[in-house]
Amino acid sequence: MSYVLNDAVAFADESAEGFVAAHRNLVRRVRGGVARAAATPPGQVAVVIGGGSGHYPAFAGLVGPGIAHGAAMGNVFASPSAQQVVAVARAVASDAGVLLTYGNYAGDALNFDQAQEQLRAEGIPCQSVRVTDDICSAPAAEQEKRRGIAGDLVVFRAAGWAAEQGLDLEAVAAFAARANERTRSIGVAFSGCTLPGAAEPLFTVPEGMMAVGMGIHGEPGIETVPIAPARELAELLTARILAERPENGTGGRVGVIINGLGSVKSEELFLLYGAILPLLKDAGLAIVDPEVGEYATSFEMAGLSLTIVWLDDELEQAWRSPAYTPAYRKGTVDLAAAPAAPDEVGGAADAGTVIAAGEEAAAAGARVLKAIESIRNVIDREVDELGRLDAIAGDGDHGIGMQRGARAAAEAAAAASSAGAGAGTVLTRAGEAWADKAGGTSGALWGLALRTLGRQIGDAGAPGAAVVAQAVAAAREAIQRTGKAEIGDKTLVDALIPFSERLTALASEGRGLSTAWTEAATAATAAAAATADLLPRLGRARPHAEKSLGTPDPGAVSFALAVTAVGTVLDAYNLKEN
Amino acid sequence: MSYVLNDAVAFADESAEGFVAAHRNLVRRVRGGVARAAATPPGQVAVVIGGGSGHYPAFAGLVGPGIAHGAAMGNVFASPSAQQVVAVARAVASDAGVLLTYGNYAGDALNFDQAQEQLRAEGIPCQSVRVTDDICSAPAAEQEKRRGIAGDLVVFRAAGWAAEQGLDLEAVAAFAARANERTRSIGVAFSGCTLPGAAEPLFTVPEGMMAVGMGIHGEPGIETVPIAPARELAELLTARILAERPENGTGGRVGVIINGLGSVKSEELFLLYGAILPLLKDAGLAIVDPEVGEYATSFEMAGLSLTIVWLDDELEQAWRSPAYTPAYRKGTVDLAAAPAAPDEVGGAADAGTVIAAGEEAAAAGARVLKAIESIRNVIDREVDELGRLDAIAGDGDHGIGMQRGARAAAEAAAAASSAGAGAGTVLTRAGEAWADKAGGTSGALWGLALRTLGRQIGDAGAPGAAVVAQAVAAAREAIQRTGKAEIGDKTLVDALIPFSERLTALASEGRGLSTAWTEAATAATAAAAATADLLPRLGRARPHAEKSLGTPDPGAVSFALAVTAVGTVLDAYNLKEN
Repeated sequence: MSYVLNDAVAFADESAEGFVAAHRNLVRRVRGGVARAAATPPGQVAVVIGGGSGHYPAFAGLVGPGIAHGAAMGNVFASPSAQQVVAVARAVASDAGVLLTYGNYAGDALNFDQAQEQLRAEGIPCQSVRVTDDICSAPAAEQEKRRGIAGDLVVFRAAGWAAEQGLDLEAVAAFAARANERTRSIGVAFSGCTLPGAAEPLFTVPEGMMAVGMGIHGEPGIETVPIAPARELAELLTARILAERPENGTGGRVGVIINGLGSVKSEELFLLYGAILPLLKDAGLAIVDPEVGEYATSFEMAGLSLTIVWLDDELEQAWRSPAYTPAYRKGTVDLAAAPAAPDEVGGAADAGTVIAAGEEAAAAGARVLKAIESIRNVIDREVDELGRLDAIAGDGDHGIGMQRGARAAAEAAAAASSAGAGAGTVLTRAGEAWADKAGGTSGALWGLALRTLGRQIGDAGAPGAAVVAQAVAAAREAIQRTGKAEIGDKTLVDALIPFSERLTALASEGRGLSTAWTEAATAATAAAAATADLLPRLGRARPHAEKSLGTPDPGAVSFALAVTAVGTVLDAYNLKEN
Repeated sequence: MSYVLNDAVAFADESAEGFVAAHRNLVRRVRGGVARAAATPPGQVAVVIGGGSGHYPAFAGLVGPGIAHGAAMGNVFASPSAQQVVAVARAVASDAGVLLTYGNYAGDALNFDQAQEQLRAEGIPCQSVRVTDDICSAPAAEQEKRRGIAGDLVVFRAAGWAAEQGLDLEAVAAFAARANERTRSIGVAFSGCTLPGAAEPLFTVPEGMMAVGMGIHGEPGIETVPIAPARELAELLTARILAERPENGTGGRVGVIINGLGSVKSEELFLLYGAILPLLKDAGLAIVDPEVGEYATSFEMAGLSLTIVWLDDELEQAWRSPAYTPAYRKGTVDLAAAPAAPDEVGGAADAGTVIAAGEEAAAAGARVLKAIESIRNVIDREVDELGRLDAIAGDGDHGIGMQRGARAAAEAAAAASSAGAGAGTVLTRAGEAWADKAGGTSGALWGLALRTLGRQIGDAGAPGAAVVAQAVAAAREAIQRTGKAEIGDKTLVDALIPFSERLTALASEGRGLSTAWTEAATAATAAAAATADLLPRLGRARPHAEKSLGTPDPGAVSFALAVTAVGTVLDAYNLKEN
């Protein structure tokens, strides 16, 4: 558990502030994360990494000469938002473009992909490489589905080295991808971890057992077996990883990482390395520059992983090259050579000025504000329950993610409304703030939904049931296009579709907004509850849904709660006006 | 707890082997610990640090350019033996002598002091500086009694810098002492830790509470209070440490360390640093090169400490200087400049050749072997109970320390006896091995006792009761002179003195060895049991004896067990011969 915190919601931000203060000679704070203190030289590809907080030194601790140019810093165990990634990329991009590289998790993939689209749209060349080193997270035939763990370090080092060699964007991306293809990791967990401010562990491992292949957010592994003596653990890890030797891994030289996840300490990691060393030698492998320590953690989780990268000549150069970041330092780096960074690049993602709409439109904007505040209030009230539901199959952050998003949305909506904005602008500002602050998959989707609603409804006046129903249908379409989820996948789509369909049907029958919305909300609630009984189809977005049989989906539940709360607000206005 | 181990007794050694293998470009294994890969240049003082295992990166992780030349590596939470310190010092000493610097704990002080004496006797100039930064471990008026915690890093860095500047031994020692005088730390603990292989935590902190000032082995702090929000914790730590601003700390520039003890993770440490920063600024202090991370740990203990060093111009140079060790790297170090180390220096501490004694003497040697084996057996049997007793007031390592010592002693005794050695040589070899392998205070004292017995008894033949009684009296005197303990201090002396007195009395009455010894052993057992009721006098060697009221002293108990076991062996010989 965490012992040092003020407020769980502020944890990641406050920690990031302290991190930057402690390393201000090396990194600078930019919107969305951190960047090297020195500017990226012209002609050099900028490497942008990122992911959730709670994995230090991943990700911000790996920003500096020899590794990354910037890191997007998501909230606790939550992907950074697309806006965050874009902001960091803008801050570090030279004319040579940006490589985005990150561990392969659904929320990260969603947000980094959106960021890539936006960067390209802005004329910044962008490529992406997802790290997929965890051999226990999917079969060898589905390597693209595997998660990224400590192999991040190998791929990030390769990308940073290639960029600093002056390779162009395609070549840097290809080299990082090559590093990923040659990197394999396997982890074991002995205990779970407790998120800051949480009363219960996010996940646990039975006492005396070890979960082989368990992920760094508690994703299920391949088997749970009794804890073995170190020499047997060494054999298990080594055998499994050597059985996955990559096709192109024909050379006998390898880089090795023994990574501690949190409370397995250095003494134990060294002991394990000592036990693995002879096994690798017996397998005919020569170890180049072993790394034993913490490179990707999961708060105080007790666990560790073994990573092997099969080197070729260039990869060996990259692996052995100097680096100087807050958390990873190696060899001799000329610290005086880099030019100073320009002042922080901001601008494009800033709030801008609100143009006041007419009186009727501003009144509609004020209603939207009330509606968004009602969402914030119900999420504040149910945050623990949502977290509990999510912890059953996911990483337990749905409640706090929704809370961050809804709070930020309400704040942005209040600012817009008090400046006289109409409904469309209030919704758009709320959506931008939600995605920016919440991070993660649900943050991206809620942000997208509110922005779509805003665009559809516009600032012209007070929208009626038909306009709103059409806007909701558009938002639903955008969410399905982006999230790739269908009904039955146990996502918020399971509640959103019945809600949208009922709303459209009632609007076409000529019902008023408040009545139609409230009835549709009832349909959403029923559908959310019914997700408990869904046989999930194990879609790409929720590979571990099998764990949640019998439990309603937290995304569907929070959606139903939100639309129900909004219905109450609409009802109240309706009563006041009638 | 520890998850990666084969055998608790071998843990520290196996971990050290893995450490050296992982960092063989930087450090080399020498008898007793590790040394820099590069030899100490002529004219440069060698800085030797050391302490128990379980505190990584203290101590071996801090060996390299900019910090230490060598580290003596004790067993888990146990001081290295004097022999280990001497061996490491010999391996790294140039003509300019050796500075020993280490945290101020009773066992370390005892062994490093013995090592200093021996090094000087060998013609190697030697000085010592004990680190005493922990403000909660004794009042300001008794600064020399304070323990050393994360302030180690400040003092070691100062010593390493001064040595590399070419200062002579007196000047290096004076500079290290100056760094220590200007350094203050305060720690808080949220949980205890469990030693490798132990079933129960060595110590605990009540849930929801934090122990202000608790030591890194669980030594009691000054108060236990509810866990506070981070900003209040920051205020508590800062206020207490600023109240201890050293007299000569008049400048406004300070170095700061936020040290994590094990499972308080980086994110939390950064958050705390962010909270402390404005408080230090408000106090008019400018922070130079803050360090936030793990510098002195205690396995997976949840805790942290704040260290402040008030800098002067030279100390600031030292604090900011480059370093390159396995665990601490800063700035730019010319890694190619250092000359390669010579082959390992060994020799003087090696076992040497046994000259066979006569037949009767060899028979006496074989009896001594049986006696020492009986000690090993009883300690093996009671190791957990001794650990439990020790955990009440101490660091819980008495059982495993005695076990390591007794096992090594029995092995060395067997080797000597099988070569035909007499009683004196068998005892001497056993004593050397015991101290070398056991480490800690009890290891040093048992080694001293056996060596004294060996010298007194000699190899002439089979000693009778009078000779043995006189030898025991001499051993008792040596132990009291070295350990400074008196009867009533709750140490093994409480059992040793009645044993020795009774043995002398019975021998002077003409009783045979076996009868006299067995009766004296009964007196020792009674006295050991009676230590449960002693009102301890809080002697220097056991400042926390107050915790152990109602519990017999583990050192006295193990002594009684040992002499009782020897009595049984002597009885058996007696029966066989009569």
